[in-house]
Amino acid sequence: MKRIVLLRHGESTWNLENRFTGWTDVDLTKKGMSEAQKAGELMKEKGLNFGIVYTSYLKRAIKTMNLVLDTMNLNYIPVVKEWRLNEKHYGILQGLNKKETTAKYGEAQVQLWRRSYDVKPPHLTDDDPRNPRLDAIYKGIDPSLLPLTESLKDTIERSLPYWQTTIAPSMAKYDEILVVAHGNSLRGIIKYLKNISDDAISSLNLPTAVPYVFEFDDNLKLVNDYFLGDPEEIRKLMEQVANQAIGV
Amino acid sequence: MKRIVLLRHGESTWNLENRFTGWTDVDLTKKGMSEAQKAGELMKEKGLNFGIVYTSYLKRAIKTMNLVLDTMNLNYIPVVKEWRLNEKHYGILQGLNKKETTAKYGEAQVQLWRRSYDVKPPHLTDDDPRNPRLDAIYKGIDPSLLPLTESLKDTIERSLPYWQTTIAPSMAKYDEILVVAHGNSLRGIIKYLKNISDDAISSLNLPTAVPYVFEFDDNLKLVNDYFLGDPEEIRKLMEQVANQAIGV
Repeated sequence: MKRIVLLRHGESTWNLENRFTGWTDVDLTKKGMSEAQKAGELMKEKGLNFGIVYTSYLKRAIKTMNLVLDTMNLNYIPVVKEWRLNEKHYGILQGLNKKETTAKYGEAQVQLWRRSYDVKPPHLTDDDPRNPRLDAIYKGIDPSLLPLTESLKDTIERSLPYWQTTIAPSMAKYDEILVVAHGNSLRGIIKYLKNISDDAISSLNLPTAVPYVFEFDDNLKLVNDYFLGDPEEIRKLMEQVANQAIGV
Repeated sequence: MKRIVLLRHGESTWNLENRFTGWTDVDLTKKGMSEAQKAGELMKEKGLNFGIVYTSYLKRAIKTMNLVLDTMNLNYIPVVKEWRLNEKHYGILQGLNKKETTAKYGEAQVQLWRRSYDVKPPHLTDDDPRNPRLDAIYKGIDPSLLPLTESLKDTIERSLPYWQTTIAPSMAKYDEILVVAHGNSLRGIIKYLKNISDDAISSLNLPTAVPYVFEFDDNLKLVNDYFLGDPEEIRKLMEQVANQAIGV
């Protein structure tokens, strides 16, 4: 039996302010830090013992990971940081409040940008200070790969190959693997693992910092998947994520 | 110009309790966490911008590193954890109070264990729960390499090859490199870089969390080295480390 656990980062300052975040490198809130520690405790109780952890270039994921590893007494395990696990790039929406954006563009348009499979928000211009090609964090990456906006489809097209070429093959070496990333980069992996349709994947609303366990048999075939934690609480958290944009 | 900064971890709970720590995986104190953040601020003010960081398997170094990277807004850089950068193994002394050990064995004997170049404290027995070969943290390492006690010479003989084969060659790729480790594993590197004799190296007392900068020219020849921070304060911190064992 092999296990891979997918974990969305804890609450960030812009989750709290209800702003489109994307590649903006915002910090965790205090609540986000507690969520990360709680996720670590759940995984420790479950007896998980990761051999390696993959995460994105964004500090809300990295700091969630640091808190999880410390809670599980796994500080020493190898860490791999990969930009392809970053959140979906939200183009010019990055930084805007979701409710205000809904008031300005209408609910239908915003839902399309947030939840359609292949519609992208308007892209950043090359000279926009939010352009990742101007950001020191990404200086080691081929600029032609760095997005100025993305649909969910685009996000999946750059995150899934990393799953296929790197994360999944590392199951040969490690029995238990942790991936700490973002709502949309994780959607791509889950879509693939569970064979979810383009239409249906958008309504999967991953709650922050709830460990999602995938179990594989010795042929690396998925045999089981489940969230760790109280099912009723998880259902409520998923509803909250779904309702975020429209401000209910 | 290339730069490598050596940083000893912040104060640990056993620094505070004045116990021999070695490979015991103790945590940072609150003061240790502030020291780490202060080190991060000093390096940020200096304009340092690391491309990679090397650290040990021990959480007091890893958590110092996490705090430094977060303070410097460098969470995204690659991290390499290596057991060869661990502290000197103190054999059966690990866990004992330094002042009590001095009272029991005499100052001369304890100074010999702490400060001689090639005298080792008595080794752990194979069935001692402190034996690293029984510790899950080291399960991936060839057991014959894992020590049951070490002299400073032994520590240097396993840490210096890591400098020579991995850290130093990475200057070809990275202009600025951070190493967060321990008093004795760093002594080995400093001894080599500054060509310090076996006798003299023992009296180099690295203060916790004070960045020690080494500058290299384009042929990777050492041209300058200095601590970051207030010289008078650093001198006092070094004296404190020197006086720890005898309890003055």
